[in-house]
Amino acid sequence: DSTLKVFTLNSNIELAQEIAKHIGIDLGKSSVTTFSDGEVQINIEESIRGSEVYIIQSTSAPVNEHLMELLIMIDALKRASAKTINVVIPYYGYARQDRKARAREPITAKLVANLLETAGATRLITIDLHATQIQGFFDIPVDQLLGVPILANYFEDKKLEDIVVVSPDHGGVTRARKLADRLKTPIAIIDKRRPRPNVVEVMNIVGNIEGKTAILIDDIIDTAGTITLAANALVENGAKEVYACCTHPVLSGPAIERIQNSRIKELVVTNTIVLPEEKRTDKVTQLSVAPLLGEAIIRVHEQLSVSKLFD
Amino acid sequence: DSTLKVFTLNSNIELAQEIAKHIGIDLGKSSVTTFSDGEVQINIEESIRGSEVYIIQSTSAPVNEHLMELLIMIDALKRASAKTINVVIPYYGYARQDRKARAREPITAKLVANLLETAGATRLITIDLHATQIQGFFDIPVDQLLGVPILANYFEDKKLEDIVVVSPDHGGVTRARKLADRLKTPIAIIDKRRPRPNVVEVMNIVGNIEGKTAILIDDIIDTAGTITLAANALVENGAKEVYACCTHPVLSGPAIERIQNSRIKELVVTNTIVLPEEKRTDKVTQLSVAPLLGEAIIRVHEQLSVSKLFD
Ligand SMILES: Nc1ncnc2c1ncn2[C@@H]1O[C@H](COP(=O)(O)O)[C@@H](O)[C@H]1O
Ligand SMILES: Nc1ncnc2c1ncn2[C@@H]1O[C@H](COP(=O)(O)O)[C@@H](O)[C@H]1O
Repeated sequence: DSTLKVFTLNSNIELAQEIAKHIGIDLGKSSVTTFSDGEVQINIEESIRGSEVYIIQSTSAPVNEHLMELLIMIDALKRASAKTINVVIPYYGYARQDRKARAREPITAKLVANLLETAGATRLITIDLHATQIQGFFDIPVDQLLGVPILANYFEDKKLEDIVVVSPDHGGVTRARKLADRLKTPIAIIDKRRPRPNVVEVMNIVGNIEGKTAILIDDIIDTAGTITLAANALVENGAKEVYACCTHPVLSGPAIERIQNSRIKELVVTNTIVLPEEKRTDKVTQLSVAPLLGEAIIRVHEQLSVSKLFD
Repeated sequence: DSTLKVFTLNSNIELAQEIAKHIGIDLGKSSVTTFSDGEVQINIEESIRGSEVYIIQSTSAPVNEHLMELLIMIDALKRASAKTINVVIPYYGYARQDRKARAREPITAKLVANLLETAGATRLITIDLHATQIQGFFDIPVDQLLGVPILANYFEDKKLEDIVVVSPDHGGVTRARKLADRLKTPIAIIDKRRPRPNVVEVMNIVGNIEGKTAILIDDIIDTAGTITLAANALVENGAKEVYACCTHPVLSGPAIERIQNSRIKELVVTNTIVLPEEKRTDKVTQLSVAPLLGEAIIRVHEQLSVSKLFD
């Protein structure tokens, strides 16, 4: 069987090192730099002919830089005769542009799928796609892993009592249900309604939260508007305390300030996206997806099903 | 016949306006903004169903941003039923990565060609590709226009006397020959040689420059190392004065400082790449490619050959 090689690009270098360590190999030797004019320059510094190559790169901000690095790396690997090019994208950017919500919109999540295949990717491994339908945008195999077990383990270890898992909107109920099943707790749903146009939204809570420890869960927390409003509504409606968690901590713009000023006691996220120093406040706990991705890579390489990893 | 529409993205807004004016139409209504997390958001604010659409965008710095804007716009136009999607890329970035010079290098110029076609481009109009071979990277029609006539007209109007056109290296002789033919002057070539490894290059000048007005020509001036060394060598070897010109003023890093400190009297460039305020020094003259691109668009739309534009 062929050699397994793991390369990293610039988005998640520490995660890639952790993954390589989990697998028990060294990271492949390569460098990504830029020329004076900002064009990406990639050097692969070891032979990869006939190898099964895994590239770790989230298409997190700066998304266009990270995506182009990835596409150029795939091109270089293809031309250097890699046997397979397995793209590991812990956070798949542009996932929210997955449909035409208005006339003449692009469907960028599909465009990105096409670009990755055109460059030469032969498999995608990713975590919590914003819409599961994005799997169908690809003609190559897609392994989608879940962040919920990692978040669930953390909350189990905390031994919190009288928990209710809360979905911040109707779209997230399935995810909340998965976490609730793991933690063996009931769920509640925040039911936002705008009574009339141009009137403030009303936060209606469906389910019993009175005196309970609420855990809000979402896949992405971006500007944190939804999640902080939800947290405050939960406390105002009688929740004892509120935790929040998500897989992908985009945390752009006012996110950290909003979280710091909110009733959220602790925000638990994973490292699919690197948090720069200024986003690592005392309220934020970051869990590693390295064991999950490391196991997935080993299983894919050994041609075993990765669905085991969901248990 | 179908409606002709011209849209601009963010790289060359003024040039696009000039092109639309030349054609005698208004620019199509659209906006390119970014979401809070840096993802590109495109809105096309008028129907383009059945239209022949031309998009103006150089893949100049920030190259990855500009390229992704372009790809996403093409995707949106395709889904909105444009009849043809004609991509006008005055400066085609990544053109210097057009071959594997070392093992395991990407061929990014070819990757970009594939990405544009995958997104849905049906034609490329561009100016002075760094290597003409890049035309062959595309399976769609490519119209390559030349910057030389624009530069030649400018120097003709200056009525300089006793000119010699100089190529800064062997690769640029064909281009220098074209300018020299237009200006009816002889040419000279800078023949860089490194006598032994780790010894400074010797600038050997092939051709007569004694007492003449030298015009150095290149396609791209990036960090301006080559061109300023060449200019200084020309003066030291007896040239009366030295002008320099190029189509694509990348001018990255130390370029402007080097030009200011060099023996170059005037640098003549085109506007395929926008010059920010700090690069518009008294030595730099910028000529517009808008009439050239405007004519090319009209001719393509009327299904006439664009090769007329080279005379
Ligand atoms: N990067 C982004 N940041 C914020 N909103 C986005 C982004 N990308 C797409 N959207 C919008 O988010 C909406 C889809 O989000 P959702 O309803 O959560 O699937 C659409 O209206 C998109 O236009
Ligand atoms: N953006 C860039 N800036 C500087 N050098 C580059 C760039 N892209 C590619 N190159 C290098 O330029 C060389 C090709 O330039 P040329 O010989 O002028 O065609 C190759 O060695 C490339 O690695």
